[in-house]
Amino acid sequence: MLICKVVKPLVSTNRIADFQHKHLQVVLDGSTQKVAVDAVGAIPGDWVICVGSSAAREAAGSKSYPSDLTIVGIIDHWDPDAAKEMAAGKPANPGAPSGSGGVQ
Amino acid sequence: MLICKVVKPLVSTNRIADFQHKHLQVVLDGSTQKVAVDAVGAIPGDWVICVGSSAAREAAGSKSYPSDLTIVGIIDHWDPDAAKEMAAGKPANPGAPSGSGGVQ
Amino acid sequence: MLICKVVKPLVSTNRIADFQHKHLQVVLDGSTQKVAVDAVGAIPGDWVICVGSSAAREAAGSKSYPSDLTIVGIIDHWDPDAAKEMAAGKPANPGAPSGSGGVQ
Amino acid sequence: MLICKVVKPLVSTNRIADFQHKHLQVVLDGSTQKVAVDAVGAIPGDWVICVGSSAAREAAGSKSYPSDLTIVGIIDHWDPDAAKEMAAGKPANPGAPSGSGGVQ
Amino acid sequence: MLICKVVKPLVSTNRIADFQHKHLQVVLDGSTQKVAVDAVGAIPGDWVICVGSSAAREAAGSKSYPSDLTIVGIIDHWDPDAAKEMAAGKPANPGAPSGSGGVQ
Repeated sequence: MLICKVVKPLVSTNRIADFQHKHLQVVLDGSTQKVAVDAVGAIPGDWVICVGSSAAREAAGSKSYPSDLTIVGIIDHWDPDAAKEMAAGKPANPGAPSGSGGVQ
Repeated sequence: MLICKVVKPLVSTNRIADFQHKHLQVVLDGSTQKVAVDAVGAIPGDWVICVGSSAAREAAGSKSYPSDLTIVGIIDHWDPDAAKEMAAGKPANPGAPSGSGGVQ
Repeated sequence: MLICKVVKPLVSTNRIADFQHKHLQVVLDGSTQKVAVDAVGAIPGDWVICVGSSAAREAAGSKSYPSDLTIVGIIDHWDPDAAKEMAAGKPANPGAPSGSGGVQ
Repeated sequence: MLICKVVKPLVSTNRIADFQHKHLQVVLDGSTQKVAVDAVGAIPGDWVICVGSSAAREAAGSKSYPSDLTIVGIIDHWDPDAAKEMAAGKPANPGAPSGSGGVQ
Repeated sequence: MLICKVVKPLVSTNRIADFQHKHLQVVLDGSTQKVAVDAVGAIPGDWVICVGSSAAREAAGSKSYPSDLTIVGIIDHWDPDAAKEMAAGKPANPGAPSGSGGVQ
């Protein structure tokens, strides 16, 4: 699943009937903007978990719903800067994840 | 789902029978050109929502249609420059999405 | 779907039985070489449409065929240079797709 | 499957019901952080095998579970530096994989 | 399908039961190391065809096997340097694939 930030709702009046009236959100995946079906009621600024692949369909409500990216959860606390440091750090040092305090 | 811009229709006379005569569009996903089945009647210059994965198949009309990218909606208003600024900005500042006016 | 260029056939004598004797082609996706099952009889130099995901399977002939990339159509006319210009251009200007003449 | 490093557990109180109470882990895929459902009981610092696509669903316990990334195994020994050297090395020399001792 | 080079077998003692005892190989996809289920008996140094997506499952032996990358064939002859040249060359010149001799 991806860790994305909700940017804003997306309005698309002319869309296929199968899409119904579900809420669409523009989300930021790294520096790329994508569109996700919102299954949890997120608001702009929220850090969320987005599921893709075929799992996005059932997550959006039904096996035949045509989504390939669905917001399935809101992350309680997320510090993107700590995340960046960790990603840039030395992941070769197991057992000592840097920063962000007492994990687990 | 991806946010793409419609470039132009694509003509492919020699194609598999399963593809039928559905309309194909060249779309721009960032700087990459892809081909999408058009399920909404988009025209060059439109900003559209494209769905991929297995969802692209039912979105194209049937569970067995061999599409992996289908245009499922036309975006009412899209400002790619505002989008770029936002992506380059400081996504670590929740609650204050920059530019593009009163969202939500 | 991807826009790829056919490079050459690929020979793989030792392969799983499910692959049968279908024709495999090396195709160029941007600067990456991939292998696609050929369902249309393309020849080296052809610009083709390749479908991925689960759709690649039925496109290759049956729901259980183990392909994740299948050539489903040959593009009638493709100008990769015009395509590059367009991708590098200003996609923010809807209604005026640059170059390549009267589209649509 | 991807080779990822477990970073820390992820807490998401507001999530869809289908997600149940399964354990979620933040994992590092190269320099990108993703979220995976943990099916093996990994701990931060572990190098793990993550499966994606539709296979992530059954790996998480059931065909209808909405995961697109599931931890399916803990790697016994993994030396990320040797891995990097190998990737940067000369993969064109078959039969002589550099470093990391007597493989196979 | 991807063109990968087999690096070495991977040992993962603690893994989910569904994975059974199938042979896992570390493969090099460009400069990224991934894990693939080996369905053909490849050895380190072999250039192989890897299938992903849902097709990887049946290729690994059954529709419910949780693989997203399976080695489905060994390439008879592969010259990675010729491949690189071709990818860096002028793919805009159809009908004249450079190097590597009489193709097709």
